[in-house]
Amino acid sequence: MVENVIRRLEDLFSEMVQLRRHFHQYPELSFKEVETAKTIFQYLTDLGIECKENVGGRGVVGIIHGGKPGKTVALRADFDALPIQEETNVEFKSQNPGVMHACGHDAHTATLLVLAKVLQENRTFLQGNIVLIFQFAEELAPGGAKPMIEDGCLEGVDAVFGTHIWSTMPIGEIGFCYGPIMAAADSFEVTIHGKGGHGAAPHETVDSIVVASTLITNFQQIVSRNVDPLKSAVVTVGSFHAGEAYNVISDTAKIKGTVRTFEPEVQDDIIEKLERYVSGICIASGADYEFKYRKGYPTVINHDSETASLVASAKQIMGEENVKQMAPVMGGEDFSYYLQHVPGTFFFTGAGNVDEGIVYPHHHPKFNIDERCMLVAARVLAQATVDYLEEGASATPDDTNIHSN
Amino acid sequence: MVENVIRRLEDLFSEMVQLRRHFHQYPELSFKEVETAKTIFQYLTDLGIECKENVGGRGVVGIIHGGKPGKTVALRADFDALPIQEETNVEFKSQNPGVMHACGHDAHTATLLVLAKVLQENRTFLQGNIVLIFQFAEELAPGGAKPMIEDGCLEGVDAVFGTHIWSTMPIGEIGFCYGPIMAAADSFEVTIHGKGGHGAAPHETVDSIVVASTLITNFQQIVSRNVDPLKSAVVTVGSFHAGEAYNVISDTAKIKGTVRTFEPEVQDDIIEKLERYVSGICIASGADYEFKYRKGYPTVINHDSETASLVASAKQIMGEENVKQMAPVMGGEDFSYYLQHVPGTFFFTGAGNVDEGIVYPHHHPKFNIDERCMLVAARVLAQATVDYLEEGASATPDDTNIHSN
Amino acid sequence: MVENVIRRLEDLFSEMVQLRRHFHQYPELSFKEVETAKTIFQYLTDLGIECKENVGGRGVVGIIHGGKPGKTVALRADFDALPIQEETNVEFKSQNPGVMHACGHDAHTATLLVLAKVLQENRTFLQGNIVLIFQFAEELAPGGAKPMIEDGCLEGVDAVFGTHIWSTMPIGEIGFCYGPIMAAADSFEVTIHGKGGHGAAPHETVDSIVVASTLITNFQQIVSRNVDPLKSAVVTVGSFHAGEAYNVISDTAKIKGTVRTFEPEVQDDIIEKLERYVSGICIASGADYEFKYRKGYPTVINHDSETASLVASAKQIMGEENVKQMAPVMGGEDFSYYLQHVPGTFFFTGAGNVDEGIVYPHHHPKFNIDERCMLVAARVLAQATVDYLEEGASATPDDTNIHSN
Amino acid sequence: MVENVIRRLEDLFSEMVQLRRHFHQYPELSFKEVETAKTIFQYLTDLGIECKENVGGRGVVGIIHGGKPGKTVALRADFDALPIQEETNVEFKSQNPGVMHACGHDAHTATLLVLAKVLQENRTFLQGNIVLIFQFAEELAPGGAKPMIEDGCLEGVDAVFGTHIWSTMPIGEIGFCYGPIMAAADSFEVTIHGKGGHGAAPHETVDSIVVASTLITNFQQIVSRNVDPLKSAVVTVGSFHAGEAYNVISDTAKIKGTVRTFEPEVQDDIIEKLERYVSGICIASGADYEFKYRKGYPTVINHDSETASLVASAKQIMGEENVKQMAPVMGGEDFSYYLQHVPGTFFFTGAGNVDEGIVYPHHHPKFNIDERCMLVAARVLAQATVDYLEEGASATPDDTNIHSN
Repeated sequence: MVENVIRRLEDLFSEMVQLRRHFHQYPELSFKEVETAKTIFQYLTDLGIECKENVGGRGVVGIIHGGKPGKTVALRADFDALPIQEETNVEFKSQNPGVMHACGHDAHTATLLVLAKVLQENRTFLQGNIVLIFQFAEELAPGGAKPMIEDGCLEGVDAVFGTHIWSTMPIGEIGFCYGPIMAAADSFEVTIHGKGGHGAAPHETVDSIVVASTLITNFQQIVSRNVDPLKSAVVTVGSFHAGEAYNVISDTAKIKGTVRTFEPEVQDDIIEKLERYVSGICIASGADYEFKYRKGYPTVINHDSETASLVASAKQIMGEENVKQMAPVMGGEDFSYYLQHVPGTFFFTGAGNVDEGIVYPHHHPKFNIDERCMLVAARVLAQATVDYLEEGASATPDDTNIHSN
Repeated sequence: MVENVIRRLEDLFSEMVQLRRHFHQYPELSFKEVETAKTIFQYLTDLGIECKENVGGRGVVGIIHGGKPGKTVALRADFDALPIQEETNVEFKSQNPGVMHACGHDAHTATLLVLAKVLQENRTFLQGNIVLIFQFAEELAPGGAKPMIEDGCLEGVDAVFGTHIWSTMPIGEIGFCYGPIMAAADSFEVTIHGKGGHGAAPHETVDSIVVASTLITNFQQIVSRNVDPLKSAVVTVGSFHAGEAYNVISDTAKIKGTVRTFEPEVQDDIIEKLERYVSGICIASGADYEFKYRKGYPTVINHDSETASLVASAKQIMGEENVKQMAPVMGGEDFSYYLQHVPGTFFFTGAGNVDEGIVYPHHHPKFNIDERCMLVAARVLAQATVDYLEEGASATPDDTNIHSN
Repeated sequence: MVENVIRRLEDLFSEMVQLRRHFHQYPELSFKEVETAKTIFQYLTDLGIECKENVGGRGVVGIIHGGKPGKTVALRADFDALPIQEETNVEFKSQNPGVMHACGHDAHTATLLVLAKVLQENRTFLQGNIVLIFQFAEELAPGGAKPMIEDGCLEGVDAVFGTHIWSTMPIGEIGFCYGPIMAAADSFEVTIHGKGGHGAAPHETVDSIVVASTLITNFQQIVSRNVDPLKSAVVTVGSFHAGEAYNVISDTAKIKGTVRTFEPEVQDDIIEKLERYVSGICIASGADYEFKYRKGYPTVINHDSETASLVASAKQIMGEENVKQMAPVMGGEDFSYYLQHVPGTFFFTGAGNVDEGIVYPHHHPKFNIDERCMLVAARVLAQATVDYLEEGASATPDDTNIHSN
Repeated sequence: MVENVIRRLEDLFSEMVQLRRHFHQYPELSFKEVETAKTIFQYLTDLGIECKENVGGRGVVGIIHGGKPGKTVALRADFDALPIQEETNVEFKSQNPGVMHACGHDAHTATLLVLAKVLQENRTFLQGNIVLIFQFAEELAPGGAKPMIEDGCLEGVDAVFGTHIWSTMPIGEIGFCYGPIMAAADSFEVTIHGKGGHGAAPHETVDSIVVASTLITNFQQIVSRNVDPLKSAVVTVGSFHAGEAYNVISDTAKIKGTVRTFEPEVQDDIIEKLERYVSGICIASGADYEFKYRKGYPTVINHDSETASLVASAKQIMGEENVKQMAPVMGGEDFSYYLQHVPGTFFFTGAGNVDEGIVYPHHHPKFNIDERCMLVAARVLAQATVDYLEEGASATPDDTNIHSN
């Protein structure tokens, strides 16, 4: 039966491409995915799939009832875009100024929609059910996963699978990882309150831009001097805004950033050090500040048994040599919440292609993908889902080498 | 005759206040002063003053023909506002979000309008003519003075007077200065081109925010280490914008700033050092850059004879103890261009009042003035103009102590 | 037979303490260990052990010929001290101002000397030979291991064991690690050539102290922004010297530091980035520089089979619960060279004791050890050596979990 | 009579050179000028000049009693050297490693000795007395002037003259200045107490070198952002010492520096800001600190009448075109103390010669002088002294243009 599914997916590849390009052209920011959600809901409904919209906010959840009794597997795709101005030259370039699918969620959604179509067509042969989780707002904490779970999207689910296409992994490869695969991803915001004034009279002011710049150069010491070199951590300032006129000293400077860690004690230490640097530099400079820190998604921790199961299925469909253990990545994902409720695994699907110039990292204004990654992802998810339902979660890990970075 | 003028100005003080508050409520950015210029033109026209609009752009120039032959004195007021969000609680607060008369040009214009009214009323007694220069765009180089001069506003003018109200000088005082009184005011812009990417993968990027922050902390060394401590110089970064998302490393950061100097050799050295720091830090960081430097208004250099004349008049009307020699200020002014063409002087009129909480520096979001400064300025300008016309430029300096900071 | 050895070691604990305290009182800097080497040579000679001095420089090598034929195991202890002024209050405090055994090499040597005595006493029962490597200059690259190997100290050796006592591991514990256990440890030196001058005339100088300080704050970006957060790296500046007078701007500033990495590609990238920062900052500041980088000891990489053998022996003598897998450490060790020539393993012996205030890290002026660590180290080395000789390297790894940080 | 003095000085120029070179070869640090003082005392005594040694410490004071009654003029020369390693190639290079006459005090002393000889020879014709003040320890606060005054060196003195040879002023020129001519020169010392440890474990330490480097880069903001650009100020760190080993994180870093100002309120503000930066950066970094600030010599403020007198004499002997008003300099001088007690003036004597490569600033390791400056200084001092004694302080300022930077 799975052979039919796979063959049909290959036939429908062009539909995936078409769908992905549509989403790409009309990206919507996190929590504002009105049209995208409508399109998904309509697509599923048209297929006759039982379907709910507005799950936990803007989420869409469908269910495919298999012809035979069995377990329930959830598959998840996210569908929000980023506040980035696209700089590619693709013909299906974003029509939405300053908004871009620069992380590939367009592909995730196109993949799962077409996979849903094929599985629905083959539902009579399924030994169990498949829940289709189309999630909004993955890019922006607190994210869509949590409210969707609270709204019941995991009810009755035995296992959950998800993938992220990955532009820095070559097309054709699958990457897996036991245990922690993605980092805890927090955000922070610092507002420096100096004292504004004329650009020619710095001594009558407290120059908020100099204070914030000093802060950022000092933040580098957190990772370089305060974190155990054997532990992984990132402190990034992604946004800095202060002042409009070139000749007015700005009284306020705002910076926003992210912190990535794997261990709670490293996370807590960084929170403490961040505020310590802010407070000390402000004392040094005579400025005031507001400091906000929001713990974001927890670490994504894969379950051994489901990972082993997925890996076995992936090797079968993709060939052993193309399914590779990988180091965890520092990026965050609210897939972590699903894995806190039900067992499952999250993996990466290669989408890069150096020969085609598809080399830009995620979140880059020139980000692009080799669209065949959608077919790869769909095939692996199909195989893994069918295998899981047929065999249950009976597989044992073939590789217990749990990375503990 | 001057006594009548002075008395009449006092009677019309409430009209000055009303005009100033009107301008304050409807501030317009440099080069965009459509309504302000219209109001001025209408006011002068209604008085029967011969008047041209769109001089050199948005400037308005009137001429009052005296009843007796004589010299021609130009009086100048500027009328543009700043891109600052007002934070005062005055009832006539700016109705224009993000735009504010935070430098007092509203008062300059109100003062000169009412002074024009009074002089026009008394024109029969005038021994010469008075040119009224209402200048647009003083705050933003290349400024309005230059095109207005090119458009003929100084034709036939023998001397030019101008004043700036000054919130850090107490109400009731006049400040003068021989020679250089205001600095050369340049602007620069640096765009850092790093390499954008995911906030969790700094090693795949060149973090433009860190580069620009490093730059700003290094710029401090220009004044602290590269400029002769006996010379005056300011390097201020007034604006820093980079990145939208907290978790995306921005590929681009833009900073804008101003440089203030009195001597050309200090100015040239700072230009060289600025680019040297930009270039070196970019090499250190692996970033690219664009560096734009625009020489702005030259130093405002008062003429001895006209300064002496103005000082004598000011002492007569304000009392000797209230007319004080002052140190030059680092601010720039395109009044410098007028003084490159005709002799004249620029002076400061105290507008501060500690008891009333009028203490904020110019360009501050809480900037305000003691409105009586308009009456002081009008009285001094009236006295100086009448004296100048009656005596010619025959006065000799009573204080040749030319400041050579 | 090993029981006799162990029991005898316990009886001779006080001699270990006495020897260690002697070495502690008279520490000698790397490459200058004249008296220490003499003492070792005399001690071994007095025991009747065949012995060579000046091996590869100041090294001392002894050989204990076992009564029965077999393999040859080398045991290594290092004996140099550090340029640190001791700040402890122990009664056997360093008599050598500015020099201190702040890393425990005094204990390593005392341990191996007494172990040599006991093994020599029991040599009739030994199934093979034991080479005693007393190494000079471990603390200072290029180190003593390399020249000692070139001078033949490993000739005929089948396996090598070594340990480092560790103040941050509790007394009674043994730490092992498969694969990389200690980092590549390089050193670098930057000399900034500015332009000296009077402290009151910075504009006539290039202030080398400001340049070097800027450099150090910028170096933090190497680890925080340029190294993959999933990789381990350290860039430390350990010494900064510039200027004598408070009022003279120093023309020269010298800084020295160390780089620690596990992977050659990270190492190479850091070398490139270090020089890029130096060169860029010097361009920014108008300074010249010299940059010297010396690759130091390579990563210490334990061999699986010998590690497994040592772990088995250690568990037998210390109890399973006290022998723990540990994360690799960022410190460097020229033990790496021995492991490039013959198989072997390097392990850590706990020497800390919180209750006794023995908590200071290695290289700290208040560094101290719980002296019982010497007995632990001696027992483990004795057991492991005898086991290895008796069983050959026949053991198979009981834990193939090779850390690949 | 003065013509004889001048002619004789010219004849004795080679003796000045010889004396200066002797002092240059055997420089002695401030407060340690044992041999230099002896040489001076012996020279004066041999001339039959009444003479005291150990005045206020190591000072030497002589008095030449004129043949006719009159006023008393004091002439002052200082004789200490600096802790700088000489890098010139002169044949009379410093024999004292690390100590150098890099400020020209050798020339000051040689000049005054030979001038004393000539004045003593001509004493019969003098209308009053001349006090010869040979001062120790000018380079190091609290300096020698204060204790010498307390020990009576100014008793009976009516006026005091002093000069500093100046390598950045061309040979043949004299520079004078009314009012403040040299800055207040303070010193400070900051000791950062971090937490030492192994260079490979930064997270277990507080890296004092990074903290002190951050401090120094932040100190630049004091002058660039906190001081009125119209005021003069310098903050220089002249010495930075921390750590011995490249691979040990130093627990302590020491920096020393100087602050130069003209106004007490600027001085007080800088003291406050310095400690604020130290305290804030230490909070940010988790370090402790000691901060010591010592107010040094006050501003040297010339007296109008004596300056005018000196200028008139200098113009007579050197030609009007060679006697120039100059801007004050940021350097400090304890000549300020003499001027707090008796009227007088301090002036500069050009000693530079670009054609001869004599271009290095004072305190530079390659500092040198055009030795003819000694003859110039001697001639001006002789003329001014004789004029002053003959005319009394009757001269009136010919230039009241008091610089008020």
